[in-house]
Amino acid sequence: MNENQSDEQYGRARVQTTPELEAYYKELESLGAGALWTVANDIEPWEPKPSSIPMLWKYDDLRSLVLKSSELVTPEQAGRRVVYLVNDKRKDVSAAVGWLYTGIQVTRPGEFTSAHRHKASALRFIMEGSGGYTVVDGNKIMLEVNDFVITPNSTWHEHGVEESGKTCIWQDGLDIPLINALEANDYAVFDGTQPLVKPINYSPLSYGGAGVVPADVVWDKPYSPLFKYSWSKVYPALLEAAKVNEGSPYDGIIMQYSNPLSGGHVMQTMGASIQLLRPSEHTKAHKHTGSFVYQCAKGKGYSIIDGKRFDWKERDIFCVPSWMNHEHVNLSDTEDAVLFSFNDLPVMEKLGLYQEQAYIENNGYQEKRE
Amino acid sequence: MNENQSDEQYGRARVQTTPELEAYYKELESLGAGALWTVANDIEPWEPKPSSIPMLWKYDDLRSLVLKSSELVTPEQAGRRVVYLVNDKRKDVSAAVGWLYTGIQVTRPGEFTSAHRHKASALRFIMEGSGGYTVVDGNKIMLEVNDFVITPNSTWHEHGVEESGKTCIWQDGLDIPLINALEANDYAVFDGTQPLVKPINYSPLSYGGAGVVPADVVWDKPYSPLFKYSWSKVYPALLEAAKVNEGSPYDGIIMQYSNPLSGGHVMQTMGASIQLLRPSEHTKAHKHTGSFVYQCAKGKGYSIIDGKRFDWKERDIFCVPSWMNHEHVNLSDTEDAVLFSFNDLPVMEKLGLYQEQAYIENNGYQEKRE
Amino acid sequence: MNENQSDEQYGRARVQTTPELEAYYKELESLGAGALWTVANDIEPWEPKPSSIPMLWKYDDLRSLVLKSSELVTPEQAGRRVVYLVNDKRKDVSAAVGWLYTGIQVTRPGEFTSAHRHKASALRFIMEGSGGYTVVDGNKIMLEVNDFVITPNSTWHEHGVEESGKTCIWQDGLDIPLINALEANDYAVFDGTQPLVKPINYSPLSYGGAGVVPADVVWDKPYSPLFKYSWSKVYPALLEAAKVNEGSPYDGIIMQYSNPLSGGHVMQTMGASIQLLRPSEHTKAHKHTGSFVYQCAKGKGYSIIDGKRFDWKERDIFCVPSWMNHEHVNLSDTEDAVLFSFNDLPVMEKLGLYQEQAYIENNGYQEKRE
Amino acid sequence: MNENQSDEQYGRARVQTTPELEAYYKELESLGAGALWTVANDIEPWEPKPSSIPMLWKYDDLRSLVLKSSELVTPEQAGRRVVYLVNDKRKDVSAAVGWLYTGIQVTRPGEFTSAHRHKASALRFIMEGSGGYTVVDGNKIMLEVNDFVITPNSTWHEHGVEESGKTCIWQDGLDIPLINALEANDYAVFDGTQPLVKPINYSPLSYGGAGVVPADVVWDKPYSPLFKYSWSKVYPALLEAAKVNEGSPYDGIIMQYSNPLSGGHVMQTMGASIQLLRPSEHTKAHKHTGSFVYQCAKGKGYSIIDGKRFDWKERDIFCVPSWMNHEHVNLSDTEDAVLFSFNDLPVMEKLGLYQEQAYIENNGYQEKRE
Repeated sequence: MNENQSDEQYGRARVQTTPELEAYYKELESLGAGALWTVANDIEPWEPKPSSIPMLWKYDDLRSLVLKSSELVTPEQAGRRVVYLVNDKRKDVSAAVGWLYTGIQVTRPGEFTSAHRHKASALRFIMEGSGGYTVVDGNKIMLEVNDFVITPNSTWHEHGVEESGKTCIWQDGLDIPLINALEANDYAVFDGTQPLVKPINYSPLSYGGAGVVPADVVWDKPYSPLFKYSWSKVYPALLEAAKVNEGSPYDGIIMQYSNPLSGGHVMQTMGASIQLLRPSEHTKAHKHTGSFVYQCAKGKGYSIIDGKRFDWKERDIFCVPSWMNHEHVNLSDTEDAVLFSFNDLPVMEKLGLYQEQAYIENNGYQEKRE
Repeated sequence: MNENQSDEQYGRARVQTTPELEAYYKELESLGAGALWTVANDIEPWEPKPSSIPMLWKYDDLRSLVLKSSELVTPEQAGRRVVYLVNDKRKDVSAAVGWLYTGIQVTRPGEFTSAHRHKASALRFIMEGSGGYTVVDGNKIMLEVNDFVITPNSTWHEHGVEESGKTCIWQDGLDIPLINALEANDYAVFDGTQPLVKPINYSPLSYGGAGVVPADVVWDKPYSPLFKYSWSKVYPALLEAAKVNEGSPYDGIIMQYSNPLSGGHVMQTMGASIQLLRPSEHTKAHKHTGSFVYQCAKGKGYSIIDGKRFDWKERDIFCVPSWMNHEHVNLSDTEDAVLFSFNDLPVMEKLGLYQEQAYIENNGYQEKRE
Repeated sequence: MNENQSDEQYGRARVQTTPELEAYYKELESLGAGALWTVANDIEPWEPKPSSIPMLWKYDDLRSLVLKSSELVTPEQAGRRVVYLVNDKRKDVSAAVGWLYTGIQVTRPGEFTSAHRHKASALRFIMEGSGGYTVVDGNKIMLEVNDFVITPNSTWHEHGVEESGKTCIWQDGLDIPLINALEANDYAVFDGTQPLVKPINYSPLSYGGAGVVPADVVWDKPYSPLFKYSWSKVYPALLEAAKVNEGSPYDGIIMQYSNPLSGGHVMQTMGASIQLLRPSEHTKAHKHTGSFVYQCAKGKGYSIIDGKRFDWKERDIFCVPSWMNHEHVNLSDTEDAVLFSFNDLPVMEKLGLYQEQAYIENNGYQEKRE
Repeated sequence: MNENQSDEQYGRARVQTTPELEAYYKELESLGAGALWTVANDIEPWEPKPSSIPMLWKYDDLRSLVLKSSELVTPEQAGRRVVYLVNDKRKDVSAAVGWLYTGIQVTRPGEFTSAHRHKASALRFIMEGSGGYTVVDGNKIMLEVNDFVITPNSTWHEHGVEESGKTCIWQDGLDIPLINALEANDYAVFDGTQPLVKPINYSPLSYGGAGVVPADVVWDKPYSPLFKYSWSKVYPALLEAAKVNEGSPYDGIIMQYSNPLSGGHVMQTMGASIQLLRPSEHTKAHKHTGSFVYQCAKGKGYSIIDGKRFDWKERDIFCVPSWMNHEHVNLSDTEDAVLFSFNDLPVMEKLGLYQEQAYIENNGYQEKRE
């Protein structure tokens, strides 16, 4: 392989334009055609080219605005009462990063949305409140802070908070921009509320065991039968793993939320992870394909993304675009810090597009640019 | 499910703007955020929404221009001497339809390109000439008219025509726009020409048997080990199938080019098919997700796409965007017609996005709109 | 299909012997051949034919004999100090049922075996004691009562009890008879003791989480990376499932020990399950292919197997041969009963041999024959 | 690992018997138990231990006897008129080698069997005649010499020869002994003759293409949709492969009959291969797990199996037991020789039991023992 990434070499387009060529290009254009060499170097970049920039959204800034939405509009009017976070470079597709959408949803006690479904997949990470619930294809699931819950593509779903609960705020993650771009999204409204088909919490109580799965139930869906991943089980698992693992140099102790019936990602197009940074841990930098949205679930620290520092604490949300170097730091020297994240890794992996590169300069730590 | 697809119903965003809301939206915008209900109905369409329009490129129009390119630029200057076909609605991404690129490449006897590779996958369908060849990861493969050949993602590849051959023209198909959009493309130039690692035509001679595969060779790549699908074997297979099959109501006798080691698509992101329309056959209309580029390999006929008629004969190229009704007609009452096509079905299928709908009005035939 | 299972019909061998045929048979025999019709009805039975009989081994009978072995022989002499349980009809292959071996092993504090490996797979269910451990491919794992632990085929393994522990008794399960019958078994002795390659309990602490798996570790083995399934996690999972599941009519609340990276069986040739019979539960009878060895982990009850009643309580072991009707009863009306079992279901399933049939007479309950 | 395979070492059972132990053993026996160390070394062999011996059945010897059977019994009486070949060491299970059955069946013009099915799988290799056919689940398939045809487990099947044909002789291969041993076999008789559900030869005409499969047909069975592998396509594929492949040192040019929808074995429990030995080719010896039955389809030569020479020519049948060294020789220096074989490799592979070892002494060639 040639390490030279200059366009001034054999194998790249280097045609000088001439009046004759200009005329030729016009003729082609009139026929719905063009000369490849006029665009080749642009559409064949040497390395993956992200269109997003790294961004961080502070919960301190957003929380009051999110709550205010519950005074300004009703769920009936709004469909869902959500403040969405948008990347400065992806406003055209309403994405937080790459092709991923994220938003913050608020639901007051006694409120609930109508049920709907779409080809886009959705997930939630609970930030505040109590008595929240999701109904997925007739399965009602109670939610607590830091729980992770999925509503896979084409499942009917609705959300609400019990009268006896407290105002709930959660982060939504969807691949709406991706499914729209792939010209495959759809939407349907459920007529009325879903009838429950199973006892409350059937899914997590049946599939939430460790190393055991129901032996007499057939599951033939292409996503996890475990719809809720409880913080009360996930955080202890992180702590157990931390006892015996060195961890990843780039991510500390990192675990993937997984489909217990396949060991793979929870849904067909989006995956999610939870990672623990030990006190004072400062990971090395690497970059890889795939877009990531993070929420700090515990502790405080910062990440350096493409050379720029982003400080975060509990509930802050930030993103890492594809192929941008990033490293994470836990600022506490006594407490662990925990980052939740979701991503489009299933897409990268299934299509053969995942690649990763360690940052080797400066012993693996980016020089801050500012 | 509610068949009503009006936005004026519960479950869709129906917020009337007010000065207070306008102020709220501004505040959100200053924080890199927005109110979901201002975009929800746009980003959650009721049905898949293609961004492309159907188009047909007549070979009679293009052939002379393609040949002319060989007088205007050299392969050394151009990288590859290709006229690409671009959808009127996808000029920004240089796509023929959806996220698929296609072009027509000309190579004169004795010419060859330098070797390169990219994360995008490529395929070719041979239109004219003799003595053409492709080298894929050190495997040299000779090409004949109507042969289908693949150069999977990240394989080194180069093309040429033997001195003793005749000017070759072939159609290129790539998923460059998709891989760019997924922010995962890369490119590398091979230093010099690839050394051959196997005898000429090793791949088709080893894996081109019917129902038998080498028992002593391990193949661990995520794409087909059969790099060339010879017309001399494919067309007879179509004829054999036609003897005993009714065929698809929408596609006639249709076969998928397949990886003999998996039965699946030839590559991770693009698939291809060959279909035979029997004399006078007029298929019914349907629509499905996924974008398609067709080339007529034999015969003449027309397709009605989204209500518009497109007449084609040998070597004409046309496209069918996602979720557009289409039906095909063989205009001859004595000869069969054969359509080659390539598509992004592997993406649709792996991501759980494939869906299909028969056109039921008018006994399955579209009323022409013009 | 013809429900008639008489051999006196067309399609079954019904040849009357004659002197001429006798001579013909002799001639064939001299050439290493025979006439199929002389054996066809025997080798083509109408239904699966088990060779084993149902048996139960009472722990009260065996425990003292098992302990006595530790006075009679040393681990050095015996290799492993095990009393094995053998089916009256399978003594020729040392199997407890079908092609499955089981035994009861005793290890005193401070004792340990040497390491070895074999193509047969092994598993253990802990019956008594404390301070026991297994080392699997350099992973040391501590064992407690009712824990289930695997030592997959061709992994190096050894067992022992810490000096500070109490005499341990556990049940071994192996597929030695099967692997011998398939002419594929082997054996190797490790030179000295295995060096530990990971911290103690690395496997259960890393892979014992519910719904999360290490994101940064590659596992490419064809068996579970979770070597120990702790009773302290499995029993609560059973109780949780019991809250929201009706359970199987034949097995009560039944869960399969599973490979968290595939959702499938723990090993390639043997599976294992844990099932809870609710107070007074009396399941219906069914039969299926596959051989099963049970151990009562908790409570007391009985099973009716092929019409015969077998009473069991904690630590008793019994077997159910292939294609024999069986039903289970919890004799307590206040406490649950728990049965551990292991089986050759992976073999049945992978080879397409699993089938199941409900007992329909008498509302699903077998008439006791005695 | 310890290369020492002596039982006189730590890790093997080395208990000297005593009167006290004898009494102990008796007590165990009375409880359906035994001491493992009395059988351990026997049931845990150092290497795979075949129970069969290599054998060869000469067609010259058998042909007249096979034909004679058609004078002695009718298909109505015999079920199927078959001479089966039995290993001297496997008479108890009617196996030719390991757990595989083989026989030679004769059918005269106008004769046909009744339809039946069983959990055992079956295959056929055509030796003589014309006008033969098989009906598999309503698919009638015409057979020619050297064609390979499958009747997978639980498919209804029947065979016959058209009135206009010539007496057909074919080799049957079944895994009856294995499925019986696994206690999973069954049998059913079809009431009358199967109605045809597809045009004649639907399967080979639809799935017999090279690198293309029907795009509009769903196949969800665990075996190949291609029921017949025609010599007219297979032999040319062998010749094509021979042009560009070195071949296996142990098998020459060897191809596996494969399921075109998976690339894997044709059925769940049995596989089959076809191999070409080039003029004068003498392969090296190796051994592996799995049992094999061969038929010479073309040419003449010999095989050395476990040190013993077996000469074969067209239509001779021989077997290679598990873990026995074998090498093949083509005795012609001008013509190629072709060996068909079937095996239980799917079982070995799925259960993780396949292993292979090259013969290294004497440059890879066995010294003949006689």
